[in-house]
Amino acid sequence: MDGGYHENVHDHYLKHGFGGRVGFGEHPALVVIDLAQSWLDDRSQQGSSALEPVLSQVLRVLSSARRAEIPIFFTTMQAQIIDLAAPIARKLPHMGATPFGEEAKAMAELDPRLERRETEELIVKPRASVFWGTPFEAYLTAHGIDTLLITGCSTSGCVRATAESAHNRNLHTVVLREAVGDRSAIAHEANLTDIDLRYADVVSVDTALSYLEAMR
Amino acid sequence: MDGGYHENVHDHYLKHGFGGRVGFGEHPALVVIDLAQSWLDDRSQQGSSALEPVLSQVLRVLSSARRAEIPIFFTTMQAQIIDLAAPIARKLPHMGATPFGEEAKAMAELDPRLERRETEELIVKPRASVFWGTPFEAYLTAHGIDTLLITGCSTSGCVRATAESAHNRNLHTVVLREAVGDRSAIAHEANLTDIDLRYADVVSVDTALSYLEAMR
Amino acid sequence: MDGGYHENVHDHYLKHGFGGRVGFGEHPALVVIDLAQSWLDDRSQQGSSALEPVLSQVLRVLSSARRAEIPIFFTTMQAQIIDLAAPIARKLPHMGATPFGEEAKAMAELDPRLERRETEELIVKPRASVFWGTPFEAYLTAHGIDTLLITGCSTSGCVRATAESAHNRNLHTVVLREAVGDRSAIAHEANLTDIDLRYADVVSVDTALSYLEAMR
Amino acid sequence: MDGGYHENVHDHYLKHGFGGRVGFGEHPALVVIDLAQSWLDDRSQQGSSALEPVLSQVLRVLSSARRAEIPIFFTTMQAQIIDLAAPIARKLPHMGATPFGEEAKAMAELDPRLERRETEELIVKPRASVFWGTPFEAYLTAHGIDTLLITGCSTSGCVRATAESAHNRNLHTVVLREAVGDRSAIAHEANLTDIDLRYADVVSVDTALSYLEAMR
Repeated sequence: MDGGYHENVHDHYLKHGFGGRVGFGEHPALVVIDLAQSWLDDRSQQGSSALEPVLSQVLRVLSSARRAEIPIFFTTMQAQIIDLAAPIARKLPHMGATPFGEEAKAMAELDPRLERRETEELIVKPRASVFWGTPFEAYLTAHGIDTLLITGCSTSGCVRATAESAHNRNLHTVVLREAVGDRSAIAHEANLTDIDLRYADVVSVDTALSYLEAMR
Repeated sequence: MDGGYHENVHDHYLKHGFGGRVGFGEHPALVVIDLAQSWLDDRSQQGSSALEPVLSQVLRVLSSARRAEIPIFFTTMQAQIIDLAAPIARKLPHMGATPFGEEAKAMAELDPRLERRETEELIVKPRASVFWGTPFEAYLTAHGIDTLLITGCSTSGCVRATAESAHNRNLHTVVLREAVGDRSAIAHEANLTDIDLRYADVVSVDTALSYLEAMR
Repeated sequence: MDGGYHENVHDHYLKHGFGGRVGFGEHPALVVIDLAQSWLDDRSQQGSSALEPVLSQVLRVLSSARRAEIPIFFTTMQAQIIDLAAPIARKLPHMGATPFGEEAKAMAELDPRLERRETEELIVKPRASVFWGTPFEAYLTAHGIDTLLITGCSTSGCVRATAESAHNRNLHTVVLREAVGDRSAIAHEANLTDIDLRYADVVSVDTALSYLEAMR
Repeated sequence: MDGGYHENVHDHYLKHGFGGRVGFGEHPALVVIDLAQSWLDDRSQQGSSALEPVLSQVLRVLSSARRAEIPIFFTTMQAQIIDLAAPIARKLPHMGATPFGEEAKAMAELDPRLERRETEELIVKPRASVFWGTPFEAYLTAHGIDTLLITGCSTSGCVRATAESAHNRNLHTVVLREAVGDRSAIAHEANLTDIDLRYADVVSVDTALSYLEAMR
């Protein structure tokens, strides 16, 4: 499906000293990226119902993470008026297509099936990476986190950017393969290959669930 | 060559409100990423002589940038002993394969054909993005920079990470197509597509040279 | 009033090569720090009506900044539940004394006399510096800002921390003496001395108004 | 000696909900800030032999930290040519007074009495805070650090800035009173008061040594 991206790039990069295994650490946190109305709904310009299966997988992970009592973080995005004249909105025209005010707030709300609890922090992030322009790293340090489990969307955007940021900080960074998704299946696969070679271990949801179950 | 990545992903993302044109600003700086011995030489594990043509293109850009008298920055990387036991070196085994001390310094030295001048700052960066863990943003502010021209390697690593960082900060971010490269031609093409959709305008070297010539 | 802090420290530091004049740049922005109900009202634990005169001075500056049509930013703070068990709340017990939910929102609201306009961005910052954990720097780059005029409270906390952050990034950093304040007049004076020696030019409101008037 | 700064400011701030005790965590690291030739020697413009007693105290702490086998970090500073025309060098004229090249390197070298070992990382930092423009936070995460013990100079500059940065990230931040110092005894005392109220527990060297001894 990915035109041989993985076969070609993966083997080539392994020879050059990339793609090692980081493994899980001992103190994980879970982040669920941008599973808000405006990403899951075809009526929003940046939205795509193709992400619906991701939500089902995230619900499995959430259930296990709550039983293991690890810290859980959700994110969403909401454009600011000040961004509209800036380079960022010229590159991303969907930012200007999103309405402001009450309607924007509604679109930025998390999908209710996630059933976020009051103790599970919601981070309104201004950029792709959960770390950029937010206090996220301070929350991780407060909990002594050494491992970040990444779920949500999009693989080629916020997921990859967050994986890079976590890797930069020497976290054990783990992306849960079926619990992340992209508008484009091709972009999804190619970016998972890059992420696994450069920034994070890409593992199956089952592998992550086994790890979480063992923590109880 | 890229298995249809561009055709499939580009059109799909345009419809979702990505891939706008940012354009050039008025106060550019040029960054030349990691054209050091250890990246260009097959004898180093992470090195690849496939990047040789990138160097030729960068020399064209450098010549024009020097005539236009814009700020020029070079980068290189050098692993620290403290990194070797950390997650980052488990993901990137080439870090441990690099020798330390004098030999490491020699490998981290810029290719002499770049003829770096004393006023062109050399930034020893610890991570993929030129911005992460360095004072780079302070140098840009000191010069009133609104536009970052990105050259060097690798497209799927340091180039993409730097483009994302520059986009985050609302710089007019521009990647010079033939003046960036990757060990893998397939990874190069796929990442240029993602970069152009999400973070930076990808333009030809000729387009950038015209822009620089017009500044004189 | 400050026990000779200025006389003793200022002269000593000048000799050691501190306390130069940075001067104004050409593209200023104004930031008004934390003039919200909870800082101005004695009924809130961290609040102090001693800051009331600061508000009057800020209104003078605002009026001039609006006529000069420079970018204006306001900030406020609001503790998150996740912070309450963390080191930050152990050092700052007032964070736990602040109620959450609707009442907390009311206390974090800007003083209505500031008459914030929709185009004047409100930044909810998690820490003392306006730059830390926020996208503030991206807003400055989008506007080509080279000069930051700092007003609000507190001199020994958010004002000093923001001045340091702006200085780190090579902005022309200017603190407006009568338009910043502190719960403690002694802490105010000592910190103004340190700020002027290390991070920012401390100037009178009249000097800043002359600068802004000249821009029209 | 401090003109009553502590008595006046401390009590006032306690009432407003500042100055709580954070306490030590379980995984400390030690940072020794800028005990290089150019800070300790009166022949350098920014240097002051008044800092000599700080070095003796730091040697006591180092000895204990090495026995406890906790991570130890040293820092130094070295101005870059690119900084000289920037706002930072206008505020800090000593940056321009420092020679460049080999002589600058010699002045930036750590005092040899510190006997730094190869495994104790030396961070060349560009600004006051050890965190700003360096990969320091990644080193802390790699070691699972939750507590930062701060020593070195100057109390009103790099020590305070580093304490603020560590507090921002929710580290248990501890400043060792006799093991930090300032060119000005008055600035030293006033800044210790502010640090203790806002960012870090200020404790005696003996208290820190007891903590370290208990770890063995």
